[in-house]
Amino acid sequence: MDSTRTRIDPAEADLSDPLRSFRDRFELPEGVIYLDGNSLGALPKSVRQRVLNTIDKEWGVGLIRSWNTADWVHLPQRVGARIARILGAGEETVVAADSTSINLFKVLSAALDLNPGRSKIVSERENFPTDLYIAAGVAKQIGKGHRLVLSDGPGDIRGLLDEDVAVLMLTHVNYRTGYRHDMAALTRAAHDKGILVIWDLAHTAGAMPIDLAGADADFAIGCGYKYLNGGPGAPAFLYVNPRHHGGFRQPLSGWFGHRSPFDFDSSYAPSDNIEQYLCGTPPVLGMVAMDEAMALWDDVDMAAIRTKSIALCDLFIQEVSTFAEKFALGLVTPREPELRGSQVSYACENGYAIMQALIARGVIGDFRAPDIIRFGMTPLYLSFAEVERAAAILKDILETRAWEAPEFHVRGAVT
Amino acid sequence: MDSTRTRIDPAEADLSDPLRSFRDRFELPEGVIYLDGNSLGALPKSVRQRVLNTIDKEWGVGLIRSWNTADWVHLPQRVGARIARILGAGEETVVAADSTSINLFKVLSAALDLNPGRSKIVSERENFPTDLYIAAGVAKQIGKGHRLVLSDGPGDIRGLLDEDVAVLMLTHVNYRTGYRHDMAALTRAAHDKGILVIWDLAHTAGAMPIDLAGADADFAIGCGYKYLNGGPGAPAFLYVNPRHHGGFRQPLSGWFGHRSPFDFDSSYAPSDNIEQYLCGTPPVLGMVAMDEAMALWDDVDMAAIRTKSIALCDLFIQEVSTFAEKFALGLVTPREPELRGSQVSYACENGYAIMQALIARGVIGDFRAPDIIRFGMTPLYLSFAEVERAAAILKDILETRAWEAPEFHVRGAVT
Repeated sequence: MDSTRTRIDPAEADLSDPLRSFRDRFELPEGVIYLDGNSLGALPKSVRQRVLNTIDKEWGVGLIRSWNTADWVHLPQRVGARIARILGAGEETVVAADSTSINLFKVLSAALDLNPGRSKIVSERENFPTDLYIAAGVAKQIGKGHRLVLSDGPGDIRGLLDEDVAVLMLTHVNYRTGYRHDMAALTRAAHDKGILVIWDLAHTAGAMPIDLAGADADFAIGCGYKYLNGGPGAPAFLYVNPRHHGGFRQPLSGWFGHRSPFDFDSSYAPSDNIEQYLCGTPPVLGMVAMDEAMALWDDVDMAAIRTKSIALCDLFIQEVSTFAEKFALGLVTPREPELRGSQVSYACENGYAIMQALIARGVIGDFRAPDIIRFGMTPLYLSFAEVERAAAILKDILETRAWEAPEFHVRGAVT
Repeated sequence: MDSTRTRIDPAEADLSDPLRSFRDRFELPEGVIYLDGNSLGALPKSVRQRVLNTIDKEWGVGLIRSWNTADWVHLPQRVGARIARILGAGEETVVAADSTSINLFKVLSAALDLNPGRSKIVSERENFPTDLYIAAGVAKQIGKGHRLVLSDGPGDIRGLLDEDVAVLMLTHVNYRTGYRHDMAALTRAAHDKGILVIWDLAHTAGAMPIDLAGADADFAIGCGYKYLNGGPGAPAFLYVNPRHHGGFRQPLSGWFGHRSPFDFDSSYAPSDNIEQYLCGTPPVLGMVAMDEAMALWDDVDMAAIRTKSIALCDLFIQEVSTFAEKFALGLVTPREPELRGSQVSYACENGYAIMQALIARGVIGDFRAPDIIRFGMTPLYLSFAEVERAAAILKDILETRAWEAPEFHVRGAVT
């Protein structure tokens, strides 16, 4: 980075931040700088009352009637419509449902069904593992010898796209490095070979504008609990391009995907629209929390999100660059904004202990094995001053070797 | 029923009810007699504070740290252990996860994988439809020509069990009629032919004692939001007999089913225990509500549940029998307690409108197409006086033809 040209002044940046009012719409604990919104988004203040209302009035008083009177039955579609808006997806192309893993199972099964006679599923070795695990499960169950072919780096993907590839399945922004693929270009390259494309938007949705329709993506999935702030284990989402609606495409054919679920027919007749991708009874408590969290996005300018996200990342890189070499912190996130998402990651020795020391000082990021410390930049509730301060605390921890304390070397189940 | 011998006096029955104190542990609206706990269980009072604590403290303050500090990560196992206790299932054989439909997909896939070379899945035409839909989805994806063979009535099932049947998949208590299968006998009959058995306990769990281990069931699934009172769309559960643990058996192979999910390996290595049946990130809000609802069962004597359930059903049948013939209400639930679950259903003309008229008078049951009115008997929060009163209101509605009012003929999405 050319520091003389792009140097960011945190105080000035905070003053001119068009998103600064959103901070007040989140609960954030005193003394914490939260750089892990890419793992679990912070709590939108209005969620508490919304969930209470659902418990006290809808469940407690309305009881079974609330499936109609509170329209619980259409929560997957209503939440999906709110998500669609920030994905650049058309109406009735997105539903909220199940988990990201289960939604991938659905769309990968559908994609393979739509593209028969081809044997390969291409992805990346560095994809988020559950995506690769799900592909293994789908391939095993179909039992026709589909093979998962993994690229060793983002640059190798195009070379793997041939006429025997059925599906290209990629996570848009890498969970460890923050590297971002060119969605439109890769989708085009795949389509040129007759390959269907699935995008995992776990680290994209809510972090930047997306144009699923413009990129002509076939399918997308993603997660409600990161940048969308839907709460721990929030319902996930899935997108299906309208040209792939219809037919009996996905095998998790539960009653909510039936054309007329409340007719209680004994034969499955799939809905001919996005609703086919629903399966069982929706998890209402999680759905209303997610709906409330998504309501906040109705007021958000996604271009401003991206501008601030880039600046937050640039500021962190700028500050850490003053001591990175001395402490052997290797920036693994691309410096070029167009090649990254909304996080900054460094490879370093003792990363686990360094992150524990940061957390003890109130700077919450996370560690990803084997050697990555990861800092998520969430434009809705982070200030530039906090990001500057986080870098200063990191510097102090490295200079004082605070991370050597034994308590920072004890491993938890989740890091 | 021999009314001179078994006549139940509601006032006496309430006085001697050993479960009567549980009523105070539920929120129930004034003026409502709730006979639909077999569709959505009532709200346990302690759930409100538990969910609030999870929102305010665990999510709002603890943020990502709560996966460890609040042990969110093991909620599926902890809730599963509580459910196991009332299913007569051993330790580490049950997890709470996903929806009933999705859990059926997992265990049916596993069962077919364990019993190769056989082509039939036997079930009932009158099974809850989503179970049949899921079987269609599994069979379609496996693509080896598995056929769903449906019995026309409970008496026909044994005749369908031959050496070409891979799996017998039954719902223990029928959702419309309340008919209950003999779990132990049918499991034995199936095993004698080398058939694996899956029991859907949606209308059983929380309604009566079960002995899954004693019956030697292979798999079971069920629902958290009926008699278990876990809330709308609560996480479902699944049981896998320990002899079927191990191997790569179920295809929804998400990261929570991996042997070491937080190692972020790119290859799927399934857990060799019940955890393999987990898939994605657990839905924490729904899980803590379910956990709190299940905590109540730690204090419940399941034998007392069954005794009261039988008596509540007997009382309702006794009261309705005084006017059933006059208004052509046909009892479709068996009179013999050993042949039924914890509901009473009648077939009748104008059932939908009659049920709407009941609901307008505060008696909440439900209607199941084409002609069933259904009354669920939940021993934890129903009194005998309420059941007597519900029958009296039904009689009044039929005598006054109150159900003829036009507003009772308008159909909602869910009935």
